[in-house]
Amino acid sequence: MSTIWHNLSKIRSNAPLVHNITNYVVMNSTANALLAVGASPVMAHALEEVEIMVCYAGALVLNIGTLSPAWVEAMLLAGKAAKARSIPIVLDPVGAGATPLRTDTALRLLGEVSPSVVRGNASEIRALGGSLAATKGVDSTDSVDSAIEAAKALVERYSLVVSISGPTDVVVSKTHVARIHNGSPMMTRVTGMGCAASALTGAYLAVEPSPFEAATQAMVVTGIAGELAAAQSTGPGTFQVQFLDALANISQGNIESLGRWEIVANT
Amino acid sequence: MSTIWHNLSKIRSNAPLVHNITNYVVMNSTANALLAVGASPVMAHALEEVEIMVCYAGALVLNIGTLSPAWVEAMLLAGKAAKARSIPIVLDPVGAGATPLRTDTALRLLGEVSPSVVRGNASEIRALGGSLAATKGVDSTDSVDSAIEAAKALVERYSLVVSISGPTDVVVSKTHVARIHNGSPMMTRVTGMGCAASALTGAYLAVEPSPFEAATQAMVVTGIAGELAAAQSTGPGTFQVQFLDALANISQGNIESLGRWEIVANT
Amino acid sequence: MSTIWHNLSKIRSNAPLVHNITNYVVMNSTANALLAVGASPVMAHALEEVEIMVCYAGALVLNIGTLSPAWVEAMLLAGKAAKARSIPIVLDPVGAGATPLRTDTALRLLGEVSPSVVRGNASEIRALGGSLAATKGVDSTDSVDSAIEAAKALVERYSLVVSISGPTDVVVSKTHVARIHNGSPMMTRVTGMGCAASALTGAYLAVEPSPFEAATQAMVVTGIAGELAAAQSTGPGTFQVQFLDALANISQGNIESLGRWEIVANT
Repeated sequence: MSTIWHNLSKIRSNAPLVHNITNYVVMNSTANALLAVGASPVMAHALEEVEIMVCYAGALVLNIGTLSPAWVEAMLLAGKAAKARSIPIVLDPVGAGATPLRTDTALRLLGEVSPSVVRGNASEIRALGGSLAATKGVDSTDSVDSAIEAAKALVERYSLVVSISGPTDVVVSKTHVARIHNGSPMMTRVTGMGCAASALTGAYLAVEPSPFEAATQAMVVTGIAGELAAAQSTGPGTFQVQFLDALANISQGNIESLGRWEIVANT
Repeated sequence: MSTIWHNLSKIRSNAPLVHNITNYVVMNSTANALLAVGASPVMAHALEEVEIMVCYAGALVLNIGTLSPAWVEAMLLAGKAAKARSIPIVLDPVGAGATPLRTDTALRLLGEVSPSVVRGNASEIRALGGSLAATKGVDSTDSVDSAIEAAKALVERYSLVVSISGPTDVVVSKTHVARIHNGSPMMTRVTGMGCAASALTGAYLAVEPSPFEAATQAMVVTGIAGELAAAQSTGPGTFQVQFLDALANISQGNIESLGRWEIVANT
Repeated sequence: MSTIWHNLSKIRSNAPLVHNITNYVVMNSTANALLAVGASPVMAHALEEVEIMVCYAGALVLNIGTLSPAWVEAMLLAGKAAKARSIPIVLDPVGAGATPLRTDTALRLLGEVSPSVVRGNASEIRALGGSLAATKGVDSTDSVDSAIEAAKALVERYSLVVSISGPTDVVVSKTHVARIHNGSPMMTRVTGMGCAASALTGAYLAVEPSPFEAATQAMVVTGIAGELAAAQSTGPGTFQVQFLDALANISQGNIESLGRWEIVANT
């Protein structure tokens, strides 16, 4: 993980294109988070162009936060084009579990476009992997633990990495589990922080071949930026502004002094 | 109205879900205003899910700022589902009067989904209620007075509360009229302040059974947050940021010292 | 060009309505940029209302950043209605050259709605005018020079003004070429600065009959606001906020002391 800074520098020098098909609420803040970290965002959702656009990209980010049927179809088209060219995909299953449209779309994307990373909160991950875990007789009264069990089931079933955001972020691969202790409670007080984390995971995937490393490093950087921003903020308005400044200004020293994570074997 | 602070505390502790079907321009700022005040925003507009999503909500906010036919249908579906479950609805008739699509949609929503509160500016309220008022022989050369007459006509016709934003906000119920003197001219210099007021009215409706109280209290809190923000701002950019901080930080003392409103009988 | 301040004052006093059919990413920041400079933004894209809405407007801004077929049709409808009433149009061909949908839509709008100004970056302008320039035997290894040649070809073919944003902005009319040296590298680190420049060009067109003057003046004001904002910023987050404050607060003295441009004959 000494490569967090190395890969951040690579994002800043290469400015990889990250293609987002994302929700209306966070389009602006996601584009700005990607620009702040040094990547090049593009938003495009028309069926007529997503397959072409994604070919220029270093990563594709699919976010189901404000779905409608045409957008689902665009995600599938873009995702299949990305898959065919081995362009890594992040899926953010916003609101999975809340409605069948969201749960079904997320599961369909999991099955058809083979994301490298699924990044969601504990409830979304449970909604997608919980029944798989349950069939193995796994259950838990603790919500984070049950999300980790659901993540492990998704990892096994779909050969991907699951990144669960929360007070402690947890990233699960077939072989390892990372726990990241960075972040700030202020991150729950503005919209789109999870979506930004997914987009930054896309930026890392564009420069880092290991999805587990990319997902973990992105969560560390997002969390450190959140801490730096919270220290300069008097509320959610200033926090949002300072978060972009922090992403742009984060230094090797910040990462070395503030980064707090551990990685253990996935047993 | 000593319940403004009590209800704000309730929003902060209960974090009621507010379902918004709103315009593209303000989705982000609306979500952030709701989060800042302590509520939980969700945006969902697909015909396939709005009826399910709204059932989780403490209130539904319908905002016609960037309409298209599929969104109108979604608003009707969500609104009818909310009505059937007695989930209170706020209608923000953005731009009513400017085009038949907007006026007709607002009138159709008024007729079919029974909003608890309609919150708009004087021109929008006149566009919706003016002809009803006119048929009663009411007319006025003063634009605010004619909006209040239009509001009274809407209140009578549709059994709801009308909240008119302006230099002085006016809230009209069948029995009472509130005039709120809070706010700042800076609120007209950024987009989405009216939409935020509508969303915050939704948050108040989720914890306060009286639509008149909810609408009035939301306008007081919005106005005080505007005043606090203006005092910290050097222009509309900083104002927008400080407004979110103010919503998050507003105290009982702020409400007691700054709140300025009076309520009289609707005669 | 001593009229930059005069026209800015006119925008601030007249508050011309600028109708935008623009992309989802920048709707909020564009509306706020227009409000900050003193104009009145409206966003409307429904086929059912764009022809009516545009008739109230002092200018129409078409931006193809997140296209889909219904939006293309709306742009054509609104554009034709504007053209029929001599309401000036700005076209921002976001991403032209990246996909056929974007290039074809931009060329179709050029041909059918007769924009007064096309404002894009060098790559977009080359994508639209490069082949016209090439048929004249024009070619260049320098990307800015080749964009200017493409711009000249577009000016000749479509009788409009082309505004190219970059480290130096270049505005080309049939008779003149302006080079504007204002701006800040920070403007490339937040999304929507080009889109804001297009919208501000629309605001200037609403008060200034010469498209060349309007386009040049808008770029000077945008660039100066960028410089003022950069001086107050510690990163892209604060820059974005300060940019709106600067647009709202820019003074005659700022324009006189900071404005740097020259105009030569188009030879």
